[in-house]
Formats: sequence, structure tokens, C-alpha cells
Amino acid sequence: MQEPRRFPLASPFESPDGDKLREECGLFGIYGAGDAANFVALGLHALQHRGQEAGGIVTHDESRGFNVVKKLGYVRDNFTSAETMEQLPGRSGIGHVRYSTTGSKGHTTLRDVQPFHGDLAVGGVAIAHNGNLTNALQIKRELIERGSLFHTTSDTEAVLHLMARSFHRTIPERLKDALRRVEGAFSFLALTSDGLIGVRDPLGVRPLVLGRIGDAWILASETCALDIVGAEFIRDVLPGEMVTIDDTGLRSTMPFEPQRPRFCIFEHVYFSRPDSVIGGASVYESRRRIGVELAREAPVEADLVCAVPDSGTPAAIGYSQESGIPFAMGIIRNQYVGRTFIEPTEQIRNMGVRLKLNVNRAIIRGKRVVLVDDSVVRGTTSMKIKDMILDAGAREVHFRIASPPTAWPCFYGVDTPDKDKLLASSMSEEEMRDHIGVDSLRFVSLDGLYRAVGEETGRDPERPQYCDACFSGEYPVQPSDMIEMGRISLKAAE
Amino acid sequence: MQEPRRFPLASPFESPDGDKLREECGLFGIYGAGDAANFVALGLHALQHRGQEAGGIVTHDESRGFNVVKKLGYVRDNFTSAETMEQLPGRSGIGHVRYSTTGSKGHTTLRDVQPFHGDLAVGGVAIAHNGNLTNALQIKRELIERGSLFHTTSDTEAVLHLMARSFHRTIPERLKDALRRVEGAFSFLALTSDGLIGVRDPLGVRPLVLGRIGDAWILASETCALDIVGAEFIRDVLPGEMVTIDDTGLRSTMPFEPQRPRFCIFEHVYFSRPDSVIGGASVYESRRRIGVELAREAPVEADLVCAVPDSGTPAAIGYSQESGIPFAMGIIRNQYVGRTFIEPTEQIRNMGVRLKLNVNRAIIRGKRVVLVDDSVVRGTTSMKIKDMILDAGAREVHFRIASPPTAWPCFYGVDTPDKDKLLASSMSEEEMRDHIGVDSLRFVSLDGLYRAVGEETGRDPERPQYCDACFSGEYPVQPSDMIEMGRISLKAAE
Amino acid sequence: MQEPRRFPLASPFESPDGDKLREECGLFGIYGAGDAANFVALGLHALQHRGQEAGGIVTHDESRGFNVVKKLGYVRDNFTSAETMEQLPGRSGIGHVRYSTTGSKGHTTLRDVQPFHGDLAVGGVAIAHNGNLTNALQIKRELIERGSLFHTTSDTEAVLHLMARSFHRTIPERLKDALRRVEGAFSFLALTSDGLIGVRDPLGVRPLVLGRIGDAWILASETCALDIVGAEFIRDVLPGEMVTIDDTGLRSTMPFEPQRPRFCIFEHVYFSRPDSVIGGASVYESRRRIGVELAREAPVEADLVCAVPDSGTPAAIGYSQESGIPFAMGIIRNQYVGRTFIEPTEQIRNMGVRLKLNVNRAIIRGKRVVLVDDSVVRGTTSMKIKDMILDAGAREVHFRIASPPTAWPCFYGVDTPDKDKLLASSMSEEEMRDHIGVDSLRFVSLDGLYRAVGEETGRDPERPQYCDACFSGEYPVQPSDMIEMGRISLKAAE
Amino acid sequence: MQEPRRFPLASPFESPDGDKLREECGLFGIYGAGDAANFVALGLHALQHRGQEAGGIVTHDESRGFNVVKKLGYVRDNFTSAETMEQLPGRSGIGHVRYSTTGSKGHTTLRDVQPFHGDLAVGGVAIAHNGNLTNALQIKRELIERGSLFHTTSDTEAVLHLMARSFHRTIPERLKDALRRVEGAFSFLALTSDGLIGVRDPLGVRPLVLGRIGDAWILASETCALDIVGAEFIRDVLPGEMVTIDDTGLRSTMPFEPQRPRFCIFEHVYFSRPDSVIGGASVYESRRRIGVELAREAPVEADLVCAVPDSGTPAAIGYSQESGIPFAMGIIRNQYVGRTFIEPTEQIRNMGVRLKLNVNRAIIRGKRVVLVDDSVVRGTTSMKIKDMILDAGAREVHFRIASPPTAWPCFYGVDTPDKDKLLASSMSEEEMRDHIGVDSLRFVSLDGLYRAVGEETGRDPERPQYCDACFSGEYPVQPSDMIEMGRISLKAAE
Repeated sequence: MQEPRRFPLASPFESPDGDKLREECGLFGIYGAGDAANFVALGLHALQHRGQEAGGIVTHDESRGFNVVKKLGYVRDNFTSAETMEQLPGRSGIGHVRYSTTGSKGHTTLRDVQPFHGDLAVGGVAIAHNGNLTNALQIKRELIERGSLFHTTSDTEAVLHLMARSFHRTIPERLKDALRRVEGAFSFLALTSDGLIGVRDPLGVRPLVLGRIGDAWILASETCALDIVGAEFIRDVLPGEMVTIDDTGLRSTMPFEPQRPRFCIFEHVYFSRPDSVIGGASVYESRRRIGVELAREAPVEADLVCAVPDSGTPAAIGYSQESGIPFAMGIIRNQYVGRTFIEPTEQIRNMGVRLKLNVNRAIIRGKRVVLVDDSVVRGTTSMKIKDMILDAGAREVHFRIASPPTAWPCFYGVDTPDKDKLLASSMSEEEMRDHIGVDSLRFVSLDGLYRAVGEETGRDPERPQYCDACFSGEYPVQPSDMIEMGRISLKAAE
Repeated sequence: MQEPRRFPLASPFESPDGDKLREECGLFGIYGAGDAANFVALGLHALQHRGQEAGGIVTHDESRGFNVVKKLGYVRDNFTSAETMEQLPGRSGIGHVRYSTTGSKGHTTLRDVQPFHGDLAVGGVAIAHNGNLTNALQIKRELIERGSLFHTTSDTEAVLHLMARSFHRTIPERLKDALRRVEGAFSFLALTSDGLIGVRDPLGVRPLVLGRIGDAWILASETCALDIVGAEFIRDVLPGEMVTIDDTGLRSTMPFEPQRPRFCIFEHVYFSRPDSVIGGASVYESRRRIGVELAREAPVEADLVCAVPDSGTPAAIGYSQESGIPFAMGIIRNQYVGRTFIEPTEQIRNMGVRLKLNVNRAIIRGKRVVLVDDSVVRGTTSMKIKDMILDAGAREVHFRIASPPTAWPCFYGVDTPDKDKLLASSMSEEEMRDHIGVDSLRFVSLDGLYRAVGEETGRDPERPQYCDACFSGEYPVQPSDMIEMGRISLKAAE
Repeated sequence: MQEPRRFPLASPFESPDGDKLREECGLFGIYGAGDAANFVALGLHALQHRGQEAGGIVTHDESRGFNVVKKLGYVRDNFTSAETMEQLPGRSGIGHVRYSTTGSKGHTTLRDVQPFHGDLAVGGVAIAHNGNLTNALQIKRELIERGSLFHTTSDTEAVLHLMARSFHRTIPERLKDALRRVEGAFSFLALTSDGLIGVRDPLGVRPLVLGRIGDAWILASETCALDIVGAEFIRDVLPGEMVTIDDTGLRSTMPFEPQRPRFCIFEHVYFSRPDSVIGGASVYESRRRIGVELAREAPVEADLVCAVPDSGTPAAIGYSQESGIPFAMGIIRNQYVGRTFIEPTEQIRNMGVRLKLNVNRAIIRGKRVVLVDDSVVRGTTSMKIKDMILDAGAREVHFRIASPPTAWPCFYGVDTPDKDKLLASSMSEEEMRDHIGVDSLRFVSLDGLYRAVGEETGRDPERPQYCDACFSGEYPVQPSDMIEMGRISLKAAE
Repeated sequence: MQEPRRFPLASPFESPDGDKLREECGLFGIYGAGDAANFVALGLHALQHRGQEAGGIVTHDESRGFNVVKKLGYVRDNFTSAETMEQLPGRSGIGHVRYSTTGSKGHTTLRDVQPFHGDLAVGGVAIAHNGNLTNALQIKRELIERGSLFHTTSDTEAVLHLMARSFHRTIPERLKDALRRVEGAFSFLALTSDGLIGVRDPLGVRPLVLGRIGDAWILASETCALDIVGAEFIRDVLPGEMVTIDDTGLRSTMPFEPQRPRFCIFEHVYFSRPDSVIGGASVYESRRRIGVELAREAPVEADLVCAVPDSGTPAAIGYSQESGIPFAMGIIRNQYVGRTFIEPTEQIRNMGVRLKLNVNRAIIRGKRVVLVDDSVVRGTTSMKIKDMILDAGAREVHFRIASPPTAWPCFYGVDTPDKDKLLASSMSEEEMRDHIGVDSLRFVSLDGLYRAVGEETGRDPERPQYCDACFSGEYPVQPSDMIEMGRISLKAAE
């Protein structure tokens, strides 16, 4: 099916050239509220940083059944008109924003946009998913062999087919049945004609929180989506937990074999919004404390502490507070960033960064500047920013990075470049410093990061408290499809 | 002519409910560069904060003559496609972004979008204008009486008609002739088949700067528009100066009777971008110093200094630095703001502010908070933010405002509400504090503001160094049309 | 999934208020031509009269695999841009235009637009269908029970699922397997990675012809689609025949039990284009001969013979030629018909017919007029036209209808109103004459119709040569789903 | 101003490759009816054949003043939505459809779309124009010299500027004043705040008729526009007459020096709709009689008379009736014509004609065919149609043309190619026959044409009753601008 071509706007949270790891989905579901679709739209709007390419909402209404609207682009542009929202009646609904994990990467088409809806023999269901199933290809191959017709390129559809073929007679049981067949990291929402279901994988890699407003229950990826609708935060859905909500209330079951949780530590570093609370901790405060740890681990004499906006700001504030070096807005973001401008002449080409960021020349000139950024992926952005800062007359540039070196790809629902594109996979800290060309470059240590997120004794190397595979190469779930395709050789195998 | 209905996106620089004064135009012109239109588009993009409703570009090409493209909406959406830019060939061009001053207010139509182009007996010309002509209605009436046909509702068109009827034989002379007939505050750009002209009114109320890149000259409203294209800042165009640029170079003339300059002080407070330099001073630094002045004039015991993002941030940093109270991101902006969501239920209605701003509840709870904002216009935003902060559990809320009370409307190209809508026109500081309902509310003094922008001895009451009519009610140019229409009674007349 | 709302334009072939039976699909496939998609688009354009709501094209390209574009609206608007056609590379392709038979009637959504594509364990396939499966609901129910997920509301998808679950190892065998399970009237096209397949149901109710251009083979609903691309007409695909085309050439098999053919006689009356040739006979000539038969069976004294344009014209010419009464363009069509105009006042309301048709008042006034139309369905159009003609001053109006009374609904891929909406189901010819209010009303006899299409001895009542269920109530295939749903009581049962 | 690119649909009335003279405007105005805009839209829809590129409507409403909507494309697409029509309140209105005469030919932009509205010192006015002013460039030059700013490239705007500068105090007087300054052929409508005005030039070259519905008056280009709204035809506006309609009724004045009328004879041949009545004569009947004349002047032995649809049909019927040779639909139009399809391969290229026309092969094969067309302009279409007919197996092809050879361009509001592109300007009838390659080619004589339109003794060579400059080269009004530009050498000058 052909969709109008849309160039997804770059995320204002991301750095200028997309040189970031990207969380790839946000979820929001509600049960028991009039105008459920409006709540879902607002919640997805608050979660837009988790996926900007497309969004979808499914509601259920007693008289009209399931209603589906999917669109490429931003929630604010797609789910605000009366015309659209009237197509989504009902007291319950789920929604999804996505970048793209599996599926046609970088080229989202409407049919790959979640939630997916299907009519099973036991009734209709819509499902939406944040994460990645690491054995989806194997399951899909088997299902096609048996006569299932796939309509998308998404791994999520395999779960719907498994549910369609399950012998159980209720949708929650069929969902459990299906999820016990898959591996990977996932938070799932399912909407039925009389209920709402939320599930987290046994390790709890991806987040999912529970909220309440009036008599309605909400499930969302982050607490900031509760705040926007004025809902009360109740608790995190637990790793391995399935919550089932219907008119009789909320029930909790634990369908999987128990495992030690391994929440994604990068949610603290970059993915989540700074006004969200994860596992009882303020994301903003965690990031500020990473800055404090950095200032202790890697102090430097300087005149100003500046952030690479906006994601580096909390750590920059922490660094300034711990070091006593004044914080200043040395780099200003243009708030009207959008798709790339045409750049037909040599003169204009390669100025991409200035479209989004501008150095505050008047206050940088002649200064020794500490620049705090959240992470280094390919290193391309760091080099451009260094150039801008030096071009503006800075005397010294000291990069401080609020995460350890990112040396391994993620297979759990995060868009990462191939391993050989990750700067830290082949260079030491010193080599990266020379490559980027700055006076100093320091990353926070893995232990420092663990301390900042509240593990006072740092990382437990025997039983790490988080999933930190992107830093450590220790993958808590085997990436089966990738191994089969020969796309990855694991550390363990080296 | 009918245009497709477009809902202009709210400016991310503005506070949530539009409770701000609004600068209403941005200008950019270039002479002597290949692909002039690309430079203009980039420059307008950097000036988007000065006008978000619409934008237009006119270029001149030897073989194709004048080329015009005007569109409603953002530069990034309208002037980036190859299809559009190919319609704008040429080595010289001017562009304009606008909100709306005169003309069909709040309902911009394409025909009111500048630049305006016309064929005079002495050749073609395109003009664009930042400011407001205070006697435009009188002139327009007279021109119609003599048989001129107006095609827009803009005051700028009157200048074009005056030029069409001038007896002078060159366009620069006709422009001088026309501008000597008008009153008000203005910076004008004019593009001819062989040159580019820039003019500032005798008081220099509105800004205009001169830059250079390679062999090309640039005229722009702010220096940030020079930065984005990598141009060098040369100097401000002087109050009352006309610069004429052609293949022979740049000439400067002073066509008006000399007056003492009265630059708009609100450009420092809010309109200009923090990375621009005005009159040799960094806007960011001026704002930070306002925060320092505020901390001196209005200290308070508190736990945190927070900004109402984003315009209050520099002053909040200054307040924190001067007071020693830690700065924190207590309010987080949603980067994906857009047009208003539908809010059909009582439950959702009135939550407008949360769409754009969210309180960082985890760090605000139980704290005494100093909230720094740039200005108070109607006071509606201040009340909503106060509610949000208290709702998040703040113990005390102390508002500190980085400008004096705004008590008078502007007639020089800034969108202000009627006088009786301005909170400060009828209330004292204490009354405003009680009305808004905060523990304390303090504005920086007019002298403090003057000190922050570099006038060390403060305001000279006899010969004020700036136009500060919005604070003082002292209007340097008589708003003739408004008086004739009975829309304003001046302080002098009281 | 949400599609932009489109109001399908009314067919210029249909009479003003849609008071016609409507053929519901057109098919075109080609194998072995560069730019296959362009041929398909042209062929579908020529078949647009068979379906105006939507169209789809699927091509197969060796390097890019299957390519799918589907759109609501006309072929001329949707499949002409370079941008679209570049998305459809390949040397083979099939296309479909549809009104809507089953599926969401009157509310076509993109996901219901054919061709449908699926990946089977034995390879990819796309299918398109003209006709209607009379036991589709029963099959769909069974498939869902076994775990198939349906993504459309179309009966055609059931065939794809049957193919997905077939145990045969080639797509042609799986298609045969599936089609042996279904009942109804159908012509099917299937595109595989290395071939093109065409099938007609055993009765041959719906048409399908074979053509050739250069080395490429074409399958299309009508010969006019061969003419438009300059292809040579080879022969009709036979009732019950499957033709399989690949690089080795064309093979023919007869997978079904043989039956006596029962081609749809209404294709001659109205559905097919007058420049098509069916079963060796010119459609135009058949229609002209119906007029001749009518003039013999129902002569009348009159001054002019006029057609209800455009479908009544050939029969009107025949009537004129046989009767000697001059033919004249008494009713003129507006060539720019489109969607309905707003008609907010009593004055304007109910003038719908005049938007499309206007009486040529100057030549009608005072005349006795024979008005020839192709059929009477609800009778609403006939009444409006009679009013127009009398209003223009005609002295007498004699309706002559080029088909027998339409008294029974069709279940074989034609959109008909419910039986009780058919005027002829409850009225005699005389009652209809009085109801419509004309001086005389006569239908051609069923035998006359058979003679006109070449059966010289008329209809064989024991073994009718055509499907004429809409006139006779004798249904050659049991409409099982309809009977199960209680939506129809058959003549046999009366 | 930039407009979205639109490819104007080809007119279904025109022959396949645009090889026709084109009437360039249609007018409709109404005074005194609620929902005036709906009447105007319907009337313009009926006049769409007079201009397909764009349309505009201006209404006047007491409370909202003048309302303007202009769009590129068809009336049916642009003036039917409630959203649009609500922008056009009022009890009076005028509208215009245009192809393009002067102005940016072939590239209509919105600002050139009429009606044009302006605020004069004596009140607002909107004007619309069918025809062409032959001295517009001279007047425009003079107006610019005096300081008028032109906003369009249309000759009509000059009239508005002349009105703006007139010393008269009423709009009707100013319109007379302006029209006395211009030369050419024109029918004008003007809408004021309290009236509607219609004027025809002294020769009455272009049509304008007066109608009445209820208490409302209508002015329109043709009677078919009265029929569509159910209005009564009152009379033709007379050559040189100005009718002024307001709440006191209708007044008629004759502002110009009287001249003998010279109505455009081509309106009978092709421009007007066959259901319109011109000067008391049915257009259909005139065309049928041209066929009768042709059969008398140029008989031939043949089997069938066919029309080049649709404009040749009435003459073909006349030819058949006079000659006794049967009329048949030998060429069928595709009703879904639209913009050109992509034709990337040699195979598909040059098949343009078949997209719109298809030969009814089954009835043409082996026949001697008389083909009746309305005119020959460049001859390109005639050659393509001849090819199609021969390709279908016709034994002989005899072209009969229902107008004399078109040898001279029109300067009175009709789009004609340059003289050297007109086949008849350089070839005799025999040469054209050989060039086109048919068995015979005959044009009706100029006298025959005059007889068919009711001049029983044919053309009066001393005082021709019609403007027939395109056939005779005798121009009743001097084309001054063309002569000045050296674009034309007149017959008189030869």
C-alpha cells in the first residue's frame, strides 16, 4: 500500500546528525475513561521522544467495535483534529509511537505502524509493543510454513499469529501462550473488547508504569505520560508481570519463570524524559548526579561548563555544581528545527549542525570550556561541535560524557549502528580524544553510572543490576535471529 | 484569494498560552551570492522566532527577473524542497517572516505576506518591513482618493504606492521620498534589479545588522542569522541610515533628520535570540545580568531557582549565580508542542499548559522555589504555572520577573493586547502578587534593566537611551492613526 | 488504518442519481513487457467504467520483488505521476479497479482495495478478482477458527488464506485447490514471481479476454483495454479455464468440472463498453439491435427519438433506424459532472439531474418524443427525466427500455438494490408506466434481448444460454451466504 | 505568490491533443438571491466548457462586504464544499471561469484569476471579463508611468485602474469612463455593494444573456447557465448595451457610439454548448444544419457517417439525415479522460489519442466512412484520427469539416495558434487533404455556414453580419497592441 511520502522530522532531543542511540517505541493505554482516544493522544504526545516516525491509536467502543487510526508523523499533527478523533470513539484504547526497530528500517510504512488489530476466533484484539523479539524470524518462518499470512514486516505481528493459533479460549491466556514462545525484551499492551492487558518481559528490560485517573486505569511507558493527563502514578508494572484490567478491576499474574531484573540503564542516561520517575528515581536527578560523578572522576580547570543541548544539560548542571565552575548556555538550540535544508553549494554544505545549534560566540570567546554530552556513538556530532566551539574562539575544549563508552549494539528495541560504526568499539578513550581533536575527553565510569542511578556500591559484576550490554557487551538474552543471520559475534564467543 | 486554512504552530519560544508580547517580523537580504534564496531561507529559519505565521522570499535573476514565493507556516516546511527553491533563482534576494501587525490580525492571508513586489515606471522593486507605520491609514486614504488600488491590508503597501507615484527617477531616491512621508518605527529592505537597500528609521527602534560572506553582503534583523550561514558580522546599520549595495559596493547615506536613538529595550528582554549580539552586547549576557540585578533588588530565601522555559533561563542562571541558590530544571518543556489538542471533556479541558510544560515533580516537592520569567503580560500564564508548581508540592513560590511591569501597548511593530488587558496597567506589584497567588512577586526595576543592558547609571529620565514605552508610557513617535481612531489615550494626554 | 476521505466521483456512464446496476470490478494483467505498470494503468483506465471507487496495481521485479500501490479514486489521477509509477518497476503486473461488492460497501478503505499480496511458504503471490464468492462467509468463519488472521473485509482474501494453507507445492496448484473450495462467479488474476495466471469460473459468468502485444501476454476484463495499449485480441478465456503464462509461454488447463456456460447477459445491456467485443459480438452492435427489436416489438408514432445519454444512445440509434423517426440529441450531458453541489436552499434542492443532464429545450418543445434508456432499476431517474422533458414542452413522452424488467438482485459481482427496491419486482409494465407518468412505457422482451445478442431463436427456457437471473430469477449458482443470513428467498422456494 | 502546481485537466469537449480554438472565459452574475454563491457556482459549472483552468467567485454581503474565492481547476472540485461556500455569503455575486487569453498564457496563477476586486474612493467593486482588450498594453504602460501598481498580468486589471483614477462619482459612470478608453471585444460584469452591471462591446462580439429567477436577475455567457439553475431566459444583452441592476430594478443604457453588430460566428460552430440558444437560434440545430449544408455541398458515397466526438456529432447527424447514409458511433470517447499518462517506452508513446478516443473496430472494419469534425486548426488531430480509423480497417475515409478553413488568428478572447501554425493559412483544401492523407476532405463554405446560422442569402461581403475574422481575415477591431509588437501583419496591409 502506498503512503504519501513524509520525511519524519528529526527529534529535537537527538543531536544534530542523528548520532544517538534511539529508543524505538512508546506505549499508552487506558481503560474506563470517556473519550479514551484523547487520553491516548495526550499520553503519546508526552512520549513522542520515544518514537517520531509514526503513531497509531486503537479504541474499542461497544457499538462500533474496534477503531483504528494510524499515521506517519507527529501525534500533535495527526491526532488533534475533531475529524480524526471522532473516528476513535470508546472508553478504552491503546496507542503506540514508533521509530522503527525491525520492519522496514528507516522507511516506515503505514501497515507497519502499531497497534495491530486482528479478529481471533475468540474475539478481536489489538496489540502494541515496545522492545524487540530476538527470535521473531524463526517464529515467522514457521508460521508461514503452516499457512499464516503476514501483512507487515514487524516482529510484533508474529505474536498476533501465535495468538490466532493458540488453543486457549481467552485472549489473556492466548497472549501468555504466545509470549512464552518468544524471546527478547518487551513491554506489551493488548486491548480486547472488554479489557486492557499490560505485560513486561521477565527481565523487565523495557519500562511500563501503572497510573490511575478517576475510575480509569492507565498503562504507559513513562510517568511523564501520566503527568500530562493529570493521572496519579501508582507503581511500575513488575518485570515478568501481566496486569489485566476490566470492569471488575485489576488483576496481576506472573506468567513467566522468575529471573533477576535487568532494567535498561540507558533509559536513565538518555531515553526517558528528565521529568519521568523510573524505579522511584527522578531521571533528571540521576542525570545531574552523573554530572557530579563526572566532576569527581574527571575534574579539569576551566571557565565555563556548557551542555550539548538539550540532553546534556542536567549532567552539565551537576558538573558545574560539583566543580564550582559556572554553568552557561554556550550552545543555543534553534527551536524550529525540521527536515534538512537544501544545500546545493559548497559554501552551504556541511553546515548541518548550525541549523539546529549555534554557539553563543560572545560568551565562548577566549574561554576554557567543559562540554557535557550524554553519549558518544559514532563521534561525528562531537567533532562538529568541537569545530563550532573552536571556530567561536574557545581557548580549550574539554569533553565530558555522561555515560561509559558505547561499544556494543543493542538488540532489545534500540536503534544502534553496527558494531564497527561505534567509535568506542575500536578506540580507547585517548584515541577517541585524539580522533575528535579536543584538549581532553572523559567518560563516566560504569561504576560511576551505577552509583548515579542509586547503586551506591556500583555495579555488581557477578549479577549486574541493569542491562548494560551496550557498554559491557554482556547480553542478558541471546540474540538468536542475529546469530543465525551471522550479523553478530558475541563477546562470549570471542 | 482563498488560502488553505493553516493553524500556525505556537512558537516554542513563547509561553504556553501566548501570554507574551510578540515581535512581528524578521528580515534577511543578501546581494552577490549564488543561490541567494538558500541563504535567505537559512537566515529566515534563524529568525523564525520573530514571526511564525508566514514567510516570503523574493529573488532577482538576470534572465528571469523577480521571483516570488510566499507561504503560510514555517520556513523549514516551506523553503526546503528543491521544487520550491528552483523557483527562486538569482544572486540577490530578500525574505521576511511575519506574525502580523497591521493587516488582518490573527488571520494572515497569502496576499498580506511580504516581501511585496511591484513594477514601477523606473523598474521593479520588492520591499519588506519590520516595524509599524503609525500614520499608514491616513496615507492609504489619500492614495485611494487619488486612484491607487490597494491589494493587501498591510501598512507596508502604502510605501510601495508612494514609491510608484514619486517623481524621482531612481528606486533608492523614490524609497527615501516615500519613507520621509511615513512615521513610525521601521527597518526596511528593498531589492531592485541591480541592488539591495536597507534603511532604519531615525530612532533606530527596530534592529538591522550588516554582515559579509565572501563577496556577498547581508542585511538581517539579528546576528544569529549571520551565524547560521557562516557570515561575518560587520556592524549595526545605524539609526536613520540607508545602505545601498550593488556591484560597485556599499554606500551609506543618512536621509532623515538626525534624532537621538531609542532602540527597543524589549529586544534585550525577550524578542531577540540569546545568541545574538545587539549594539555590541550579548543578549544572553544581558539577560543573565538582569537575573543578577533581580537577585540584588529582590533577594529571597529559597531552595531552588527555576526558569519558566525557555526565555526565563538566562535570568534564572544569573539569579542563581548571584544568590547562591542552586539552579534546577524544575519545569520541563515538551519539545513536540504543536497546535492545541482537542479537549472535549471537562476532565481534559484547561490542561493546556501541561501539553507544553511539565513540572519535574520529583525535585520540586517540598521545596521553596524561585521562579524566573521574562515578563508578565496578562498574567494568565503565571497563574497556571503557579498552580502547576503548587500542585507538584512546592512549599513556597517566589516569582521574579526579568522586566519591569508591562503597562502600555506598543505601536512600533509588536503585538500587544489592549491596555486594559495588561495586568500591570491596573494593578500594583502587591496586587499582582495577590492576584496571581504567590508568596512573593518582584519585577526588576527600570533602572536595573538599564544597568543590565550596559547603562551603568541607569535610565536617563530626561533623555531615555531606549524606547521603553511599554514600561514607561513615553512614546517617542506619536501613534497618529490610533489617536485618530480613538483607540488610545496617551499618558501625555492624561 | 485511516485514509484521507475521498468522495468518489459519480460515473459519467451512470445515470444521474446512481439508479443503475453496477458492475463492480475490472481486471488487467500483463506478463513480459518492460514498464508493465504503465500498461496496467492504461488498461485500468480503459476499464474505469467497471469500478470508480479505487484502484490498485501490483508488479513484480526481479531485484525489488513485489511492489504494491493502492489508491482511492480514478486511475487517471492516481497512476500517472512519475513518482507513483517509479514505485512499480517490473516486467509483469496486475491491476484492479473496484466499486465494491462485499467488503465495506459504499465505504471503500485502502486495505480492501485489490490486488491482495501475500507471502506463502512457496513464494509470494498477488491476486485480484472480478465477481463474487457466494460461500465466502462460511469459508472465512472456518479459517478464523483455525487461526487465520483476516486483514480485509473482502471475500477475495479468503482465497489467499486457502492458498496459504494448501498442501500443494506450486502457486497454480494452490490456486486451483482454493478455487475448487469456493462457489460463485469469478474471474481471477494471480501474479507470481515468475508468472501470470487467469481463471474464469465454470459458468463463465464474468468476462476475461486474452491479448498479445509484442512478446507480452495480456489478460483483461474487456477488449477495449487491449485497444488502448494497441494489443491484439487473441480470444476469450473459456468458462472454467485456467491460463498460466510464464517465460515458457502460455498453458491452458480446465481445473473444474465442466458446465454449460452462462455468461452475464447484462454485460451486453450495460456493463461493457460499446467498443468492446464479447464472444465475437460488438457490444455497440448488440445494443443497436436491441433498439431495432424494441422498434419492432413496441412501435409508436412520434417526431423524435432521443437517448438518455450516454448508455441509451446505441439502442436509440437502432430504434430510429428501424422506425424511421429522426434521431436527435434531446438531452445533453454536462461533461464536467462531479460530486454533488451544495444545495442549501429549497430553490436549488432537487435539481440534481440538471447538473449532469440538460434538456435541449429548443428542439424538444412541442414534440412527441421516444426516450430510449438501457434499464429501469428503482425508477427514480426515469421520473426525473420525464419531468425535465415535459417541463421543456414535449407533447408526448414514450419510454422504451433496452432490457427486460429488472426484478431480481444479482449475487455475482453486481451491485443491486434489495429486491423490494426494484420497481419491476412489484409492478407490471402498465403499473410502472402510470407510476412514472409517461404516455407509454415498453421493455424489450427477454426473447428480443436474446435475439439481439445473436440467439436467433431467442431464449432456451430449458437451458438458458446466459445468466439472466436479474430478469428471470433463475440463479445458476446458489447464493449460500445470503440464504444462510436470511437475506434472500429464492424464486424456487416461492 | 506561489501556487501548488496543478495540471489543468483537458477539456472533454476538446479534441485529443488540444487542437482546437478555445473560447477563453465564461461569466455568471446574479443579483437578489439568497445564497448567491451557489447560483454562481452552478452557472459556472454549466459554463465550464468556456474555461477549465481556473475559476473565481466574488459575492457581496451587507455585513461582511466583498468576499473572494479563487481556485485553479474545475468548479465541481472547488466550489462545492460547505467550507468554501460559507466563505461566500451574500445576495449578489459574480463569477468567472477562464482558460487564459492574455496574462501568463498556459500558466495560470491564482493572482490572474478573475473576478478582480478593488476598493475605489467611491466604494468597492469586482469585475470579470470575457473577451480581449486590443490596446491594453498601451493603457497599462501609461498607467504605470503615472504611478499605478499592477498586480496581475491580465488586461482586465487595466480597466480597474482606469476606474480608480476616473473623476466620476459613481461606479457605473466610472466603468463607462474606463470602457470608453479601451478597444477590443468584451462582455463585462461588475459587482458593487448595491448592484450588478453587465456590458457588451459595441460590436457584441462576445455573448451575454439576461435571465430571471424569482425576483433575482442573472447575467450569463450562455442560456445553458440559466437552465441549470432553472432560470427563465429573458433576452440577449444588446451589443453596446450596459444593464444596471439594483434594488430598484433594471436599467439599460447605450454608452458607446452605435455600430453594426458583428457577433462571433464561431460560437455557433464550436464554443457554445449545443443546448444553448444564441440570438434566438438553437446551437444544436445550427450545427445540425451545417451538416445538412455539408451534405449538399460535399456529398460522397459511403457506408457510415461518424462524428469525431463530441463536438462533431450534431453536424454528423445532419449529414446522415440529408445524405441518407446511416449514422453510427464509430469513435467512442473514454469518459474518464484526465491528464496525460506517463509514456516512458517507445511502445506506449504517441498513443495519446487512444486515451480519450477509441475506434469501434467491429463496426468500422471494411467500411467507407464519412468523418465529421467541427474544425481543422493545426491538423494534428485529424491525422491521428485518420490513422486510427485506417488502422481499424476502414476502406475509405472522407473528412467533412463543419466550418470553413481556419486561416487567421483571433484577437478577441479566443486562444489561437500563431498564423503560421494554422494549416489553412498555407494550404489549399486539396493540399490539406493530401497532408492529412484521406480519400477526401471538404469544408463547409462560408456562405453555407452563414445559411446554417439563419442568414438565408449567405454572407453579405460588404457588411458581414458576423465576426468571421478567423475564416476571412477581416478584423472588425484593429489589434493595436499586436501591431505595435510586430506580432501580426494584417490582411489589409498585405
